[in-house]
Amino acid sequence: MPRLLLDKKKCLNNIQVMTGRAGQHGLSLRPHCKSHQSAEISHWFREFGVSSITVSSFRMAQYFAKAGWKDILVAFPFQPGELGPLQDLSADGRMSILVDSPAAIPFLNQISHPVDYYIDVDTGYGRTGVRAENPELMEQILVKAAGNPQLQFQGFYCHAGHSYKVHTQKEREAIHLKALDDLQGLKEQFSEYGPRILYGDTPNCSTQKDFRGVDEITPGNFVFYDLVQQALGSCSLDEIAVALECSVAGKYNHSQQILIHGGAVHFSRESLSINGEAVYGLLVQRSAQGWSQADSKTWLTGLSQEHGLLQNCQKLFHQVSLGDKLLFLPVHSCLTTNLAEEYWTLDGQIIKNIHAS
Amino acid sequence: MPRLLLDKKKCLNNIQVMTGRAGQHGLSLRPHCKSHQSAEISHWFREFGVSSITVSSFRMAQYFAKAGWKDILVAFPFQPGELGPLQDLSADGRMSILVDSPAAIPFLNQISHPVDYYIDVDTGYGRTGVRAENPELMEQILVKAAGNPQLQFQGFYCHAGHSYKVHTQKEREAIHLKALDDLQGLKEQFSEYGPRILYGDTPNCSTQKDFRGVDEITPGNFVFYDLVQQALGSCSLDEIAVALECSVAGKYNHSQQILIHGGAVHFSRESLSINGEAVYGLLVQRSAQGWSQADSKTWLTGLSQEHGLLQNCQKLFHQVSLGDKLLFLPVHSCLTTNLAEEYWTLDGQIIKNIHAS
Repeated sequence: MPRLLLDKKKCLNNIQVMTGRAGQHGLSLRPHCKSHQSAEISHWFREFGVSSITVSSFRMAQYFAKAGWKDILVAFPFQPGELGPLQDLSADGRMSILVDSPAAIPFLNQISHPVDYYIDVDTGYGRTGVRAENPELMEQILVKAAGNPQLQFQGFYCHAGHSYKVHTQKEREAIHLKALDDLQGLKEQFSEYGPRILYGDTPNCSTQKDFRGVDEITPGNFVFYDLVQQALGSCSLDEIAVALECSVAGKYNHSQQILIHGGAVHFSRESLSINGEAVYGLLVQRSAQGWSQADSKTWLTGLSQEHGLLQNCQKLFHQVSLGDKLLFLPVHSCLTTNLAEEYWTLDGQIIKNIHAS
Repeated sequence: MPRLLLDKKKCLNNIQVMTGRAGQHGLSLRPHCKSHQSAEISHWFREFGVSSITVSSFRMAQYFAKAGWKDILVAFPFQPGELGPLQDLSADGRMSILVDSPAAIPFLNQISHPVDYYIDVDTGYGRTGVRAENPELMEQILVKAAGNPQLQFQGFYCHAGHSYKVHTQKEREAIHLKALDDLQGLKEQFSEYGPRILYGDTPNCSTQKDFRGVDEITPGNFVFYDLVQQALGSCSLDEIAVALECSVAGKYNHSQQILIHGGAVHFSRESLSINGEAVYGLLVQRSAQGWSQADSKTWLTGLSQEHGLLQNCQKLFHQVSLGDKLLFLPVHSCLTTNLAEEYWTLDGQIIKNIHAS
């Protein structure tokens, strides 16, 4: 079975760097736990002063509440079907939700405990949120919610996910600065409410230097990083804290291909395009300290449900034997970790996640 | 939470049709259970006379052995690290493995119970297996294995997965007929062993009419089918037996987009290309009988971890409200079901799978 290895030292360093950046800019850090989905890893953040978290579903909120978290933001527009879990969770801790439509408000009429809400703002990503250019719609939400004393407006939330889609740091900075401008404009326009600004994806939180107007950042992926983030310039290969360990299950002389036991149910189907070819992972070398990315040029290029194929790797072909274990950095760590039930630290400790039986 | 719905009637019909096809051609059916990964669903096959199964990992073999299966093929080249599970499982039932290299044989020296093995044959897919054109390598495997009385050669196995990569039924038939020719050639060449032929992916088993030389077929996906299979001509939309039920979580007037709670952690990242655009699911209409695919033209075109986006769907936009539940056929059902812990039948019964806690 492939194992998901976790370099705890790198992970703790990633947490320390991000909490450091947050502190330097006077920001709170409310890390997004969808990237690790593990109670134990969430507790590592506590040592760095973190006391609130972000999740992307009520199922995750329930899991982390059970693990002791008392201040949880569900960063997904509130759905009517989630009223039950919201009721239960808000009875026992501080719950925050996102709202991006007046239509959501009536479904919250029945809440019997205080619930914080943030208006989700779209500064150009185009996925969720009220467009920043539409304060009238925000006003409608505020007016509609004002009748519900349990529903407490806290401010604005923005995930500028289009920063993942551009190719240069300059374009990324433009997206970031527009988001800051938009959010600061809203902060002023709605100043009577004293709104807080929650913001921040991993690329921007890892690289930008200007966070004016922002109160709290909510990145998640930085806990492990991955090849997508490295390609975006958010991290170095050396900062990626998880790797999949897969056995060599076949060597084929005629094609010089190496088969590994590691497929779409381990890596996920997420790919990066390298020289026009879809790749699913990057081979790294085992080292005394865990793994080293030196001379990493071998990509996992073939993937089916349980099978992975290394192609065009003649030198490696002659070095490996059946049963050898190879390590791969994942393309998108959030999706890879979602397919595992546990992490193995480099000293053999098993860390369970939300999927563990 | 998105729910994975299962139309049991369609599923049973798919099983019946495939067992019927197998019977018609005088073939045994050893269905691949990676597609459903559920003990309960595996038992549905028993009513159609199925007594042996295929899986793709030892973890699955352990799960299905615990569910009572006594004749299991692990259709993945044997890995040295799986000796322990193989020992345990072969003590209690008939286990079959795949071998595609003489290098695997010494790792099997320690087995203390009989184990059947098949030589994995590559007829052009290029993923695993000894090339059909290389009987010398097969001979080497046989010679090396002959020294181990517990290791019993049963025949040849072939998964002609390149049938998924071609675009016409004619090309698919050519792949199929070449595989049959290759396998029949091997059957004759190695006739002293009386080898059995195990063969068959879902596209070929669903559509081909000639199975000369084949003894047993091992398709899996047909139990549910999916949009990939429909595009290949293996099934109609109406035969797809699973659908993801996702709530409407947002409606955005400016873009006329609909947000659903259903993302890469529910559908998987597998996509189909429709008119040059990547799609992740097809909207179907709820009906008294479950769902109907009539007039299905709305594709799920946006996908992130928990979010799905329906774009260019103005008519639907005006029909749906927040909290409405929409149904989607999956692109690749094996990967979608792998992300769930349970199925919901149309009458509300919950069927657990291998991932259920």
